[in-house]
Amino acid sequence: MTDDPQAAIDAASERRERGRDSRVYEHTAGDVQDGIPFIGAGPGDPGLLTVTGKELVEDADLVVHAGSLVNSELLEAYCADAETVSSVGKDLEELIPLMRDAHEDGRTVVRLHSGDPAIYGAALEQMDALEQEGVPTYIVPGVTSAFAAAATLRTQLTLNGTANHVAFTRPQGRTLDPEDDHVSEFVAMGDVTTCIYLGTHAIPDVMDRLRDDGHDPDTPVTVVYHASWPDEDVIEGTVETIGEKVEDAGYRASALVVIGDAGAGANYDRSYLYGDWANRGGSESEADD
Amino acid sequence: MTDDPQAAIDAASERRERGRDSRVYEHTAGDVQDGIPFIGAGPGDPGLLTVTGKELVEDADLVVHAGSLVNSELLEAYCADAETVSSVGKDLEELIPLMRDAHEDGRTVVRLHSGDPAIYGAALEQMDALEQEGVPTYIVPGVTSAFAAAATLRTQLTLNGTANHVAFTRPQGRTLDPEDDHVSEFVAMGDVTTCIYLGTHAIPDVMDRLRDDGHDPDTPVTVVYHASWPDEDVIEGTVETIGEKVEDAGYRASALVVIGDAGAGANYDRSYLYGDWANRGGSESEADD
Repeated sequence: MTDDPQAAIDAASERRERGRDSRVYEHTAGDVQDGIPFIGAGPGDPGLLTVTGKELVEDADLVVHAGSLVNSELLEAYCADAETVSSVGKDLEELIPLMRDAHEDGRTVVRLHSGDPAIYGAALEQMDALEQEGVPTYIVPGVTSAFAAAATLRTQLTLNGTANHVAFTRPQGRTLDPEDDHVSEFVAMGDVTTCIYLGTHAIPDVMDRLRDDGHDPDTPVTVVYHASWPDEDVIEGTVETIGEKVEDAGYRASALVVIGDAGAGANYDRSYLYGDWANRGGSESEADD
Repeated sequence: MTDDPQAAIDAASERRERGRDSRVYEHTAGDVQDGIPFIGAGPGDPGLLTVTGKELVEDADLVVHAGSLVNSELLEAYCADAETVSSVGKDLEELIPLMRDAHEDGRTVVRLHSGDPAIYGAALEQMDALEQEGVPTYIVPGVTSAFAAAATLRTQLTLNGTANHVAFTRPQGRTLDPEDDHVSEFVAMGDVTTCIYLGTHAIPDVMDRLRDDGHDPDTPVTVVYHASWPDEDVIEGTVETIGEKVEDAGYRASALVVIGDAGAGANYDRSYLYGDWANRGGSESEADD
């Protein structure tokens, strides 16, 4: 069926509508399961891979990875002796048989995505196509680049009274219609930290639209290029100024854009102050999550 | 100054407005730095802690952790010989001197938050107060519970054509005013996966408000309790049905609520199909992030 992966995806969708895969209940997240793990490699630094992800990669015979999106230092650190294959430039019709055949030959295969596979990964379509071929798969979560950016900036993405919510979003372009671009709506809410993925090349256009929509040109915008990589860089500006700064720096990809005050870590209220923290009930103890 | 941590926080905010801390540029995310690391413990499973987080915890003399929000299995696995102190029930006036004194006594101190510290953590206020006391701090990012929930559900939070964006949000309540509750706005966008943190106890109220706002009562809602913990549980329903199901299950805390089709992994378009993937330019290769 690898000649028609969309059919495999549609079939998987139909199966899901009839009820959950029993493995949802048989396993918990983080379990090592049968089949090919789709592992979140984290933002780049080898130390920001999870312990389980590292063990799986170290044990692999074949590592199919996201090319230059995964730090080569990570591959060198954990799978120098494995066969490594970049997925860049390969479509499903090539990737699926590659992984299926290696699995059926008894080799240990892992698929390494950058960040966390649940955020702008293209993991599920590969998983569905593999499952259709009889190859079990599962996800091992990872650290997304927005969290590395927050660590670099020494701030939180949520801050009491300043940023009560976070949006992970992408701007309109070849693969997103203008009516599905919500950047301006998130910024308009006023207390949302808006994190733009996949939009480095489009920063000037995004900022122009925000100004056209009447947003304050002094709204803080922080750009973190290659968060946690050796060439990590931070560019600070505003809706008015950030476009030109990023163009001057020459970055066209691999940066995360953070719109809002939380990027600067300014002006927040301590949460340990409100109410009587020490006497809060169980449901409120989640505030530390 | 620990008698007035809010003053320390305000002073830190003012410093930030005058310019970034130089450590923002001197370090990259994932670096081990001087001082006390604020480590994201991940969602619960010890294997979902990062490699660097594990090494820091293993090396610690004193681990200040988020009580029952951090899986005791993780503490047993990595710091059985260290002194461990729960932060639950302690305000800043108690926590800050505790960590400062241990650090000044030459002990290796780590602060372990659940999930990632940037998402609904209360890390920054502690960091600001410690820095004011002359104790350096930094963040080590982690895996947030929404990513573990997605792994459990064998899905992505973003899915082409179904869920182009993700919101991490919390509902109104004692610590969030009704006008800052954006759950209904996120759901209204139609292609946002809305992940509700800190809201297990409020699920029936949230669903009532969504119905009052005219949202489709058949909108899928998936609740993942204790994602990646041994007692992990998944409850599936809709805006109409999920409130009663969660009440019947007796969960009042520690669950993540996922509103939208992506939670069910249904009906998406393969991304490897669009355009000519093999020939896409550099800026588009981010689509695999």
